[in-house]
Amino acid sequence: MTVAADTRTTAANKSFDLGPAAELVSKEEGHRQPLAPEFVCLEDFSPLEVAYDFGRVRREDIEAGPRSIWRYKHLLPVPSNVEEYPNTDPGCTKLVRADNLAKALGVKRIWIKDDTGNPTHSFKDRVVAVALAAAREFGFKVLACPSTGNLANAVASAAARAGWDSVVLVPSSLERAKVLMTAVYDGSLISVDGNYDDVNRLATELAGEHEDWAFVNVNVRPYYSEGSKTLGFEVAEQLGWRLPEQIVVPIASGSQLTKVDKSFRELGEVGLVEPSPYRIFGAQASGCSPVASAFKEDHDTVQPVRPDTIARSLAIGAPADGPYVLDSVRRTNGAVEDVTDAEVVEGIRLLARTEGIFAETAGGVTVATTKKLIDNGQLDPDSETVLLITGDGLKTLDAVQDHVGPKATVAPNTEAVDSALGL
Amino acid sequence: MTVAADTRTTAANKSFDLGPAAELVSKEEGHRQPLAPEFVCLEDFSPLEVAYDFGRVRREDIEAGPRSIWRYKHLLPVPSNVEEYPNTDPGCTKLVRADNLAKALGVKRIWIKDDTGNPTHSFKDRVVAVALAAAREFGFKVLACPSTGNLANAVASAAARAGWDSVVLVPSSLERAKVLMTAVYDGSLISVDGNYDDVNRLATELAGEHEDWAFVNVNVRPYYSEGSKTLGFEVAEQLGWRLPEQIVVPIASGSQLTKVDKSFRELGEVGLVEPSPYRIFGAQASGCSPVASAFKEDHDTVQPVRPDTIARSLAIGAPADGPYVLDSVRRTNGAVEDVTDAEVVEGIRLLARTEGIFAETAGGVTVATTKKLIDNGQLDPDSETVLLITGDGLKTLDAVQDHVGPKATVAPNTEAVDSALGL
Repeated sequence: MTVAADTRTTAANKSFDLGPAAELVSKEEGHRQPLAPEFVCLEDFSPLEVAYDFGRVRREDIEAGPRSIWRYKHLLPVPSNVEEYPNTDPGCTKLVRADNLAKALGVKRIWIKDDTGNPTHSFKDRVVAVALAAAREFGFKVLACPSTGNLANAVASAAARAGWDSVVLVPSSLERAKVLMTAVYDGSLISVDGNYDDVNRLATELAGEHEDWAFVNVNVRPYYSEGSKTLGFEVAEQLGWRLPEQIVVPIASGSQLTKVDKSFRELGEVGLVEPSPYRIFGAQASGCSPVASAFKEDHDTVQPVRPDTIARSLAIGAPADGPYVLDSVRRTNGAVEDVTDAEVVEGIRLLARTEGIFAETAGGVTVATTKKLIDNGQLDPDSETVLLITGDGLKTLDAVQDHVGPKATVAPNTEAVDSALGL
Repeated sequence: MTVAADTRTTAANKSFDLGPAAELVSKEEGHRQPLAPEFVCLEDFSPLEVAYDFGRVRREDIEAGPRSIWRYKHLLPVPSNVEEYPNTDPGCTKLVRADNLAKALGVKRIWIKDDTGNPTHSFKDRVVAVALAAAREFGFKVLACPSTGNLANAVASAAARAGWDSVVLVPSSLERAKVLMTAVYDGSLISVDGNYDDVNRLATELAGEHEDWAFVNVNVRPYYSEGSKTLGFEVAEQLGWRLPEQIVVPIASGSQLTKVDKSFRELGEVGLVEPSPYRIFGAQASGCSPVASAFKEDHDTVQPVRPDTIARSLAIGAPADGPYVLDSVRRTNGAVEDVTDAEVVEGIRLLARTEGIFAETAGGVTVATTKKLIDNGQLDPDSETVLLITGDGLKTLDAVQDHVGPKATVAPNTEAVDSALGL
């Protein structure tokens, strides 16, 4: 407990090496404060975000960097020697040209950013890796989180590799695959009798009591969330240092979408790309679509809902960054749309059969929403579109189990096989 | 059926573009024949292997190539424009310096080649990608296989991306995760009443009847199996263009181990690395350890066994390449060892808690065998050792489910959490 207590009292005068990160700024009124493990501005009570003094950042330096998110360290709140410490080193996942899917959807060009290739098979490895790097600099020794799955896997794995203890809190209803994949790394996995909102509230209380615990998505959230920018950085670099014309991003808390937007703006600001126009689209499941509702009703605020969808990794009824998502989408001339659970399953299957990529339910939401946006004319079929596929189908098998299976079960002879295939 | 029938009749005079591949050579007596979709020499009945005319292959050309196995196309039996066709483009997975594991095992330096990062999360994506590329050149239109899991996933995924039909035969007892992950790609998955030996025999019969079906591990096996060389190529490149001193490889059919050996020799022959000495070690589960038995009893042949182990992806009782494994291991001064199912589980857990990498049972076999080889003095603790982790823990959750889980299930308050953690 002493370490971070020290940290907090000295935060104002100690200078941390978090690379280009300069200070924290509140999102509402722009109040500034020194870098520290804080997440809410005590003046306007809005979330704190990292502000930077970017030096000169050149394409050649990035291209010569490691094959991980650390190639972008000069654009992230991490120490300048970040790659020297054990971490999961995620990122540099594939950007797949999805011609079969584009044809099936009747559009010109689709790219799939396939984050199933990360160490624990979701984009959460990106944000956790950045959180771990910042937490190490702040002097924390325990990595913690409340989670419904992908984040639990990523935190437990990263802590193991770093040689840290982890404390992961999950709702007791969590699926078997996610429980086992968290527990195997041998941190402290605690099952909590309650839903995700209960677990989240508990985590905030614990963060207040245990000041040596870095709750990645609570007290080090400003650093953690910047990790999502690497999705945008990679897309731009993989397209040959240019911004895509349209991008479809799933919405849970909404953080990822706003950070992809931020990444595109920063790339333009530091001169790594031409600041060409782009449109950002948000994707939700209808069973948890508060941001889509606000967008369609032209509201500036987001009314919380009680989630009821198979897309559990997106099931945040009160998305913290909802209003900022609305800002990003409206500013870029995008839209937010939502799809039914049946459409989510069809989205998973469409991506699998056209491109051989097996996404979790969140990916199904993204694919199905893209189809809907094309069908209703909001997404331009003649512009290229990037889809963020942020998690792996192996973690949400329940979603497809009643829909796919063997064509037939047959006796072990060739006639039986031919007959089953209608030959 | 017409396509491959054409292929076969013209194989002798048609010249296929399979890059540096020159002809097929029988492993026993060295009989030569033109490149064709054949897998057994009709003169000595031994397996056929690809022989090459390597041109000049330079490090710079490889380093400037794509971030996939196609960077090594000048060392593989694939068309020179292979990267222009849709494929899963696997490879370039991480080589992780595993200092925590090395410390736990009391050795100087361990590297983990982590093939869970491949598109369907196993090394099978490598061999299937090469098989698909060769099959396309031979004029096939259907990708097929018998499989117990990882191969089924890889074939169904690659066929979907290529726009091909697939026929995947699996034993009806196959685990849910592997069935669903194969079926989702929407090829023809056929469940067969029988064990893997029955399914394998059926596949060989079907390959004879359906000449337009490329059974990746039957009629195009000589090309398919060369894909495993890319594991060795990548390890050498990632070490800075040098061979490791020791490498531990799991044994199923034994093909992978012999191809890693071949890859190291080829790298030396074409001058990409110094031909420094290396030792190859084989890892088996005791419940299916025919090669380990033959090694320990100093036999040249391998006596088939009936498999009984949780390491199902290694459960081949009559390993086709068993004798060649013995050759490689003995020639390089290595060894073959086997471990119990309890040790396999402990191997999975040891890797997860030290390095944050969740391997399938085959990875547990590799880690546990490494520990045993160190303990019994066969593996030199002062030399560096590479471990091949070839598949993903999410596909074999059954192996760990009775061994790991939440520390406690508690009420949603901080006292309950602190109490569960002993604080």
